[in-house]
Amino acid sequence: MISFQEALDKINEGIEKIVYNEKPSELYEPIRYILSLGGKRIRPALTLLAYNMYKDDVDTAIPSALAWEIFHNFTLLHDDLMDHADVRRGKATVHKKWDENTAILSGDEMLILSYKYIAQVRDKHLKEILNLFSRTASEICRGQQYDLNFESRSDVSAEEYIEMIRLKTAVMLGACLKTGAILGGALAEDADKLYDFGINIGLAFQLKDDLLDVFGDPSVFGKNIGGDILCNKKTFLLISALNKATGKDKDDLQYWLTISDPQKNEEKIQSVTQIYKNLNLIEISEEKMQYFFNKSVVSLKALNLPENKAMHIHQLAMQLMNRKL
Amino acid sequence: MISFQEALDKINEGIEKIVYNEKPSELYEPIRYILSLGGKRIRPALTLLAYNMYKDDVDTAIPSALAWEIFHNFTLLHDDLMDHADVRRGKATVHKKWDENTAILSGDEMLILSYKYIAQVRDKHLKEILNLFSRTASEICRGQQYDLNFESRSDVSAEEYIEMIRLKTAVMLGACLKTGAILGGALAEDADKLYDFGINIGLAFQLKDDLLDVFGDPSVFGKNIGGDILCNKKTFLLISALNKATGKDKDDLQYWLTISDPQKNEEKIQSVTQIYKNLNLIEISEEKMQYFFNKSVVSLKALNLPENKAMHIHQLAMQLMNRKL
Repeated sequence: MISFQEALDKINEGIEKIVYNEKPSELYEPIRYILSLGGKRIRPALTLLAYNMYKDDVDTAIPSALAWEIFHNFTLLHDDLMDHADVRRGKATVHKKWDENTAILSGDEMLILSYKYIAQVRDKHLKEILNLFSRTASEICRGQQYDLNFESRSDVSAEEYIEMIRLKTAVMLGACLKTGAILGGALAEDADKLYDFGINIGLAFQLKDDLLDVFGDPSVFGKNIGGDILCNKKTFLLISALNKATGKDKDDLQYWLTISDPQKNEEKIQSVTQIYKNLNLIEISEEKMQYFFNKSVVSLKALNLPENKAMHIHQLAMQLMNRKL
Repeated sequence: MISFQEALDKINEGIEKIVYNEKPSELYEPIRYILSLGGKRIRPALTLLAYNMYKDDVDTAIPSALAWEIFHNFTLLHDDLMDHADVRRGKATVHKKWDENTAILSGDEMLILSYKYIAQVRDKHLKEILNLFSRTASEICRGQQYDLNFESRSDVSAEEYIEMIRLKTAVMLGACLKTGAILGGALAEDADKLYDFGINIGLAFQLKDDLLDVFGDPSVFGKNIGGDILCNKKTFLLISALNKATGKDKDDLQYWLTISDPQKNEEKIQSVTQIYKNLNLIEISEEKMQYFFNKSVVSLKALNLPENKAMHIHQLAMQLMNRKL
């Protein structure tokens, strides 16, 4: 069985070769650029690790693993454009480094490119993997649309939020794992359990991310702390606060939601963070997170496999959950 | 054998059902909208007619035909956004009727949707059709990138222009025909000849379009006459004029390329049109067009089929070429 690090090495080697030296450079340089910015490469690693639970020749699963990483980066490219985000992983986003048309067209080509990698699946599994890929890709678009819709709504419920992050974030993790399982010849039942594991770990992961955005250690988190608060992002924390706050907390929260003066950024972050603390939202979020994490572990333990086969995936899940506040 | 009109009826019936009632409406309404704007539906018709040259059950080819029409409309949606075009077929473009983010995300979903229709191909042909689809889609992105690059270049050659329109326009016609041929069980040789026919008819078609944009009948053409001249679009006409003009024509042309004052629109169109006439560019364009048209007919006649099988496709090609100046 290969380790997470060995999986990563194989993926990074594959990424190096993607659209290498393709012309015109105006179309392909931005693709090479965003793929080179790094990131944790968790999605393709999940495909390889899931495959490796059933078969040893992990190289067979590499094209599909790369398809998911290309698709993931395509969504980041177009989402950054839609969100007017200037920075991604400490570097300029594609529409900032080049321009908006470049971001649109290079993104489109990345989406096509991800299908070219999916098309390398052996005939036996092609239709199933292709359908999984397209179904998941559509769900992610729907998730992004709900996320955009939420910006102009003040009545988003916690259930709607969970459904949005399920679509926008969790289904991709589930589908990456299921891809590996199908290619590895897993029982349909196992492939579905790995998918469920991915969904629940994805939900827990996103709730953790929301928490880290407010309470994380700036030197570790990699983004500016409080970014979600400043742009009034409807996270689980803000939605819960809007539902639970009463009296002064409620008035203060409503007040701060109307403030977008950069001079008051620090004060806004501190005040809203304090309201979240008053409302016990760290505990409530962590409880929700733990709920999804526990569900994910149940799926993993139910696989028709010796438990040690799931070791690396279990470890990876633990690492994602144990990121420090 | 079905007629062009019968093919159209089947296609329009299929288009009616695409993403009908899918949610969220913010994502799917713009897709229904652009697909409802009409257009000639030439591409899906080519798939059905090519299929019908080999097999009778044309319904088998409908999902692939729709995939091409969805993909074509996806390119229009994103190209209109990149070109800041306000109007498409007499109606507001998607980014004007909604907004830019809607155009980006609904376009992305359309591209995924086109692959969902391609995935309905029977297992036997799936990999070949999928690869043809992705290869062609990438070529179209490359064509669009070259078109964007040409905007800021003054030294584009006629050969570069032909290669750009081959990628941006012609390969899709070739691939639509080849899709039908493959699904219909044509010999590989025939499928390639139909592809070549599509390439050459596509090149002739685009040269005709460039001519019509300047010399067409406004009541028939559907776009404003002179649009290409006003935005200095590097068409075959402008590129040829830049290469051939001397003396006063050359000076005048260079002058008008610097003018973008809306008050002078009429004068600019008239003056540049006169320069094209002075340089005999109608004849030169028509000669080039005829060259590609003749090549296309050679491919069609070389098919391993009774000649009457290609009748409807031949008629369609004649109609496209005989649009009146």
